[in-house]
This record gives sequence, structure tokens and C-alpha cells, in this order.
Amino acid sequence: MAVYTEVSDEELLAFLARYELGALLSCKGIAEGVENSNFFLHLESGYYILTLYEKRVAESDLPFFLSLMEHLSAQGVSCPLPVKDREGRALGRLVGRPAAIVTFLEGYAVHHPDARHCEALGGAMAKLHLAGAEFGMSRANALSVDGWRALFAAHAHEADGVEPGMAALIEAELAALAESWPRDLPRGVIHADLFPDNVFFLGERVSGIIDFYFACCDAFVYDLAISLNAWCFDDEWRYVPAKGQALIEAYHRLRPLEARELSALPILARGAALRFLLTRYVDALSVPAGALVRPKDPREYLAKLKFHRKITNVRDYGLDM
Amino acid sequence: MAVYTEVSDEELLAFLARYELGALLSCKGIAEGVENSNFFLHLESGYYILTLYEKRVAESDLPFFLSLMEHLSAQGVSCPLPVKDREGRALGRLVGRPAAIVTFLEGYAVHHPDARHCEALGGAMAKLHLAGAEFGMSRANALSVDGWRALFAAHAHEADGVEPGMAALIEAELAALAESWPRDLPRGVIHADLFPDNVFFLGERVSGIIDFYFACCDAFVYDLAISLNAWCFDDEWRYVPAKGQALIEAYHRLRPLEARELSALPILARGAALRFLLTRYVDALSVPAGALVRPKDPREYLAKLKFHRKITNVRDYGLDM
Repeated sequence: MAVYTEVSDEELLAFLARYELGALLSCKGIAEGVENSNFFLHLESGYYILTLYEKRVAESDLPFFLSLMEHLSAQGVSCPLPVKDREGRALGRLVGRPAAIVTFLEGYAVHHPDARHCEALGGAMAKLHLAGAEFGMSRANALSVDGWRALFAAHAHEADGVEPGMAALIEAELAALAESWPRDLPRGVIHADLFPDNVFFLGERVSGIIDFYFACCDAFVYDLAISLNAWCFDDEWRYVPAKGQALIEAYHRLRPLEARELSALPILARGAALRFLLTRYVDALSVPAGALVRPKDPREYLAKLKFHRKITNVRDYGLDM
Repeated sequence: MAVYTEVSDEELLAFLARYELGALLSCKGIAEGVENSNFFLHLESGYYILTLYEKRVAESDLPFFLSLMEHLSAQGVSCPLPVKDREGRALGRLVGRPAAIVTFLEGYAVHHPDARHCEALGGAMAKLHLAGAEFGMSRANALSVDGWRALFAAHAHEADGVEPGMAALIEAELAALAESWPRDLPRGVIHADLFPDNVFFLGERVSGIIDFYFACCDAFVYDLAISLNAWCFDDEWRYVPAKGQALIEAYHRLRPLEARELSALPILARGAALRFLLTRYVDALSVPAGALVRPKDPREYLAKLKFHRKITNVRDYGLDM
């Protein structure tokens, strides 16, 4: 959570002059978003979020992300809608960085989702996948099985510092997943980061989905595998079958899962656990000593990975399908 | 700028249930406020700021600050108005910290105020001083001449690391200011931290004043001395007479300054420069290596202190009064 780039009122006013959004009434830096700098904007025409894209988001990917949000909004998905300037551009530059204004979404993240939240998420995810069907652009998943080995290689020698044996476990998983990763599953646009932080609720209803900056084209069921990891464990990192069941069955009601998708779920869940183990581990290494940002504990995803390794059948997740 | 304390949705919803403000629609941590954790709240009844008071604000001072904002609001000053819960309390507890909800103020801070902004500030400050007249509570200025020596003593040995000779200069100032500090000037409630960050504008009009957590009872002209330092120099730390003149003359039009206040201005401006030099210097020492927070350069206020030491007459500030 941070604002990495300060924006002066002069720079902001000059930037806003390119839009037809009315006068600036308020601007506050938001302590959210690990990757980018975000500002809450109140303009005469309404409430918006201004995002400055920092170096971790590739500028060449931004047209994909912004066009995707536009496409999904048009399909009725409640997600931030990029606002275009007078010349029809959704992407500008501010303080030397790519910058965009998107509409503000009501709702708030749920810190401890229960089975009802998981059920609501399952429905929202299925709608998201269906809504992406006609989207014309493509982006590979840079953080899938083909990218993990390189991500780990640079930091492998420090892995046993997190937990003894972690390096060997990750090496074994990298080999096993490369060998058995399913390549022919139904695919399309996935969010690829549907953590509770990125799903807003009003009561038990999903009011919006944000942060599409990992979105890509991949197996639909990989999105489910990510959320199974992120939503369906308790605070002690133990799997809660009622949550997993609620998530997957709600998804299945709107976009029926094929048998091959269901049977791929355990291995995709292992892959998803490994993906977040790797990025959290690498992120934790790169936090300077004494920094105010508290890195997330990589051992959470190590525990989840170990859990998924023991799953032999999708019924072990508590499913009856 | 930071959110020091995370608030879960469960804790927030339980806290909000004590108020009659309607359902929660949105909550975002704000990357503002050096001392406290601040959240932007959208509730059914409107927009608010939720503040969690961290350890640098003494809990025993909070009734003074909150009552002052209430008093000033009632007098027509545009400042945050504390919202009371169903039992009439402005101060609650959240995540183990004192917490309050205040109304949201439109406007934005001006990073490079010009003479027109200084003029608007002078008028707003005079109104603030006049509006505080009937306020019944009192709080000593803990960061005035009697507090500086103790603040410096703990860190004096590191001062020459900022700039050679700084330790001796500060020692000389501490002695000179203790000797000549005026004690009988017109006094009342002052803001004591009227930096550009704490004054919101809409265009050239002051739309609101925030952050009353240094407010205290002291000489009115000390508030002017603080803002003379904070608003009336350029980016190279050079005094700009047109700004100082605009600030002081606008103030004088609404609350005429007595001759003894005007003649005390140079020494109070030296004191104000020393006060911010000391707190910035001490803050810079306490930032951990590698932290994301960039401490403000203490040499800015060393330069300003040196400038004020050469002032022998208030006319040297560009005043014609």
C-alpha cells in the first residue's frame, strides 16, 4: 500500500484539463495497490480513481488492461471504466508515468470471506469469464508455469531461509508441474488475481471487481484455482471445504465446468499456490530492512501448496460433482 | 504519509454501527497524515474522514482538538466537524486506538502557493483566531520555546552531521530565544501547523483548514510566524517579500496587529524556524534506513533560521506598516 509518486496540484490540474470532467474538488492519495500509485479524485462530474503506473506494470500491456475494462463494463461487469480524454485516449502521462482515470466503484473488500462471499465470488467470476468471450485482444500469462522457473532461479539459494526444505520442494514442484500442466483446457480472459482485496462487496453482493493488471488469456479454471487458494482457507491456512464448495458450485451454475476442467483443478491449484509462494517470497526478499511495508508471509502459500499436493481427487475439496 | 493501522471490514462495520450515518459504501486508506491513520469513508449519509490516533498524539489532548473543531465549525470556520455517535460521543475506539469520524472537506492543497494564496491564507488565519475567542478550553504549546532545549538535547551530538556548525548555531539560538522570547503578546487559540498541506483551496479561495493536532493557546502572531516560514519562501529557500506582505497585510485587515506584535515578528519567526528545524532534524534521525518515507530536509529550516536572524526590523520582510 503506497503512493510511490507525488503529484503536485499544478501537474494534476494540467492533466485534468485534457478531460471533460469538470473542476477538481479533491484529490487524496490512496494507501492501496502494491504495484501502482492511486489517487481518489472528486471532480465536478463525479468520483474517480487516478492511477499512475509504476515500473512493475509493463507500459506495452496497458492498452490490453484498459481495453479489457472497457469491454467488460460494456458487457455489464461492474469494474472500473477508463475515462477518455477529449481526444479519445484512455491513457495519458503524468509526472513522467503512464496514467489513467477510471470510474470509482462503491463497495469494500471483505477481510474474512465466508461461504456466502465465496458463493457470490463464484457467480461473479463466471460472469466475468463469459463477458470476456468476444474481447478481441490477447495477453499471455507471464506468471504461469513457463515463467516460474526463471522467477525462482535468481533467488533459489535463499529459499531455505524461509523454511528448511523449501528449495527442494519448489524444485520438485517446478519439475512436476512442467511435466503434467494441462495445456488444452477451455480458455479465455481471466483476472488472475481475484484475491479478496480486489473484489468489492456491499453486504453479501459483489459490487465490483478491480485491479485487472494481471489479467491475461489462460484456462478459466486457473482463475478458480487462484481464488480457491485466496478465499477458501482460514486464518490458520487450513482449507475450509464449505467455502471451496460454495465458490465452485456457484461458478458451475453459470458456466458449467467440463469434467476435464474439474479433474485439472488439483494440479492448477498447486500451480496457483506455487505462483503466489514464488512472488511473495521474491517480494519479501526485496523489501529493504526497516521499511514500513510489511511483506506478506510466503509460508502461507507454502502451506497451501503442501495441502494441494495431497489432493488426489476433486472430491477432496468437498465437492459433490 | 501512511496508514499505520489496518482496519478490517468487520471492525469497521462494528464501529460504524454506533453511529447514525447509514450503511458503509466505501472505505479507503489515505496516504496522508504523518501522525495518524486516515481513511476516506463513503456512507449512505455522505463522505467522511475516519482518523485513528496513533501514539504521537496524546490521548488526553484529543478532547481539546475535537471540541475546538466543533467550536470553530459552529463559528463558521470551514474545518472538519467531528460526528457524534448515538450516545453523543465524538471520540471512540477502533483497533485499540482512539478514533473519530469527521466531515469531509472539499479542496486540495497547493504545493507552490503564490502571493494570492498567501493573501487568502492571511484572511483565513485571522478569521480562525477571531473564531477561537470564546473557546473555553486551554492547551499549552508543547513545541514552543520552553520545549525546544529538551527536544534538542537528546540529539545534539548528531547535529553537525546535517551541516557543520549546526549544533553551535542551535545552541546559540536556544539561549538567545529563551532570553528574548516575548511573553505578553495577545494570545488565544492558534493552529500552530498552518503549512500548505493543511489548507485546502478551491481555485484561489480557502475552502477548508485541516489537521488541528498541534493547536494550542499561544501568541496569535506566532501562527503568522509559522506560516511566514512555511508559505513565503521559494523552492530554493529564499524569502519572497511579496508573499510575506500579502499574508500579513491580509491578516491585518481582519485582525489588526498591534505594534508590539509586529515588532515581535522577527524573533517569533526565528523561533518558528527553529521549531521546525528541530522536529524535522529529530524525525530524519528516526527514519529507519531504507524506509519508503522520505524525511523532509532539515536544512530547509536551517536556511530560513539564518535568514530571520538577519532581520532587524519588520520592514525587512517587505512590509510597509
